[in-house]
Amino acid sequence: MLQELPTLTPGQYNLVYNMFSFTVATMTAAFVFFVMARGNLAPKYRISMMVSALVVFIAGYHYFRIFNSWEGAYALNEAAGMYQPTGELFNDAYRYVDWLLTVPLLTVELVLVMGLPKEERGPLAAKLGFLAAAMIVLGYPGEVSGDASLFGTRGLWGFLSTIPFVWILYILFTQLGDTIQRQSNRVSTLLGNARLLLLATWGFYPIAYMIPMAFPESYPSAAPGTVVALQVGYTIADVLAKAGYGVLIYNIAKAKSEEEGFNVDEMAQPAAATA
Amino acid sequence: MLQELPTLTPGQYNLVYNMFSFTVATMTAAFVFFVMARGNLAPKYRISMMVSALVVFIAGYHYFRIFNSWEGAYALNEAAGMYQPTGELFNDAYRYVDWLLTVPLLTVELVLVMGLPKEERGPLAAKLGFLAAAMIVLGYPGEVSGDASLFGTRGLWGFLSTIPFVWILYILFTQLGDTIQRQSNRVSTLLGNARLLLLATWGFYPIAYMIPMAFPESYPSAAPGTVVALQVGYTIADVLAKAGYGVLIYNIAKAKSEEEGFNVDEMAQPAAATA
Repeated sequence: MLQELPTLTPGQYNLVYNMFSFTVATMTAAFVFFVMARGNLAPKYRISMMVSALVVFIAGYHYFRIFNSWEGAYALNEAAGMYQPTGELFNDAYRYVDWLLTVPLLTVELVLVMGLPKEERGPLAAKLGFLAAAMIVLGYPGEVSGDASLFGTRGLWGFLSTIPFVWILYILFTQLGDTIQRQSNRVSTLLGNARLLLLATWGFYPIAYMIPMAFPESYPSAAPGTVVALQVGYTIADVLAKAGYGVLIYNIAKAKSEEEGFNVDEMAQPAAATA
Repeated sequence: MLQELPTLTPGQYNLVYNMFSFTVATMTAAFVFFVMARGNLAPKYRISMMVSALVVFIAGYHYFRIFNSWEGAYALNEAAGMYQPTGELFNDAYRYVDWLLTVPLLTVELVLVMGLPKEERGPLAAKLGFLAAAMIVLGYPGEVSGDASLFGTRGLWGFLSTIPFVWILYILFTQLGDTIQRQSNRVSTLLGNARLLLLATWGFYPIAYMIPMAFPESYPSAAPGTVVALQVGYTIADVLAKAGYGVLIYNIAKAKSEEEGFNVDEMAQPAAATA
């Protein structure tokens, strides 16, 4: 984040540039889908699509900003045939602002789609949302510190941030595990997948966080390959964790709607009742 | 507002920059939520979500402008490693334009969600809206005067602006107080919270207004810390008073909808009524 940007080849620069544009397109298209897809769901599950729509809306906005920031941070040096830093900040902090808003909402999506009784749903969503926000907030000081050591500022805040992360995993695999078991086969498989997707994509962020610890000698002037790998990695993780995850949530909500007698595929006309 | 901007460290400049971007994301996402969430409410309460949506739409627009204005007002001096004023105006007046539109609407939201009889609702909303607009209009001449003294232009208009503010508080805690008491326990707690949130967030603005009176010697060239604290403070107050407050209004409207037999969670299909 406070790293000096390295000179990049056109191939490296354009890969990141195109990934950012791809993500703007994916997030905004996912937004349109989630907004429209609400009508296919039983009314009680529509709120989960609304939250999915918010997540990709917020992410689309931030990827638009990140794209512009990347464009401003580099200029082509035609003589050298390389992209060189302009001195303008590449504001990676947009990611933290984005996560602060979206990561709590991702946990809320999962709780909303389970169809828990109201008195369980609220407290559980609040607890997971709070832990997710704490995880992001605690990671931030280490990220901006410019420190790269395991036993320094970066390591300390990274460790503190891991506590709510582990706590969330604990809730997902114990308390929510029981709830998942109680669902039908089809739904419990889908819920298990959504949980695994969270685990797999969220797992990328601590790895990215630890990269400077693994290569402290290259910090704060990062190697071109590291910068490109990080940006591409974050982007793939964000697309899967937000748009892909939202589609999974849609499938779960659709399956539960059908089990509860709301089947849009069998409706003769918009307002007709199912059998 | 007519202050000369101080030189800022990259950390100070970026904190304000990221807070503005965060607020654009939050306000626009809140707009999307309020528009979609209308359908979860009984028809008579949907108007309160429409007004909430207007408020965050207007605020999102203004924060977009404020963000751009902040970006234009500063440039990185690479030799010094500091952000220096470019001489371009940082147009804080966007805030007053925003408040002139949104603050009356915030009082209207509260009246609309109470479900008062029609003949009480209109006059009360008009009275509160008028007082809120008067409060903003009367504060403005003092803010732009460039004067910093308690017994000068700033103090005079500040005092005049306080009259409608106190009047609003009087109405909220007497006339509306009785109405709040008549609601169910759950709703009256939520309404009490919304009223407290208004009081707490609105309380920030007069404090910010008085800062130049407290430190007249540093006026019109403000200290960096004061500028950063003011902008961050305004931003947090706006997010809570508009997006956060709108979510509270949604919860109140949802609770009242359910009490009156409109429960979206128990609906079998889109247009069907609950039992």
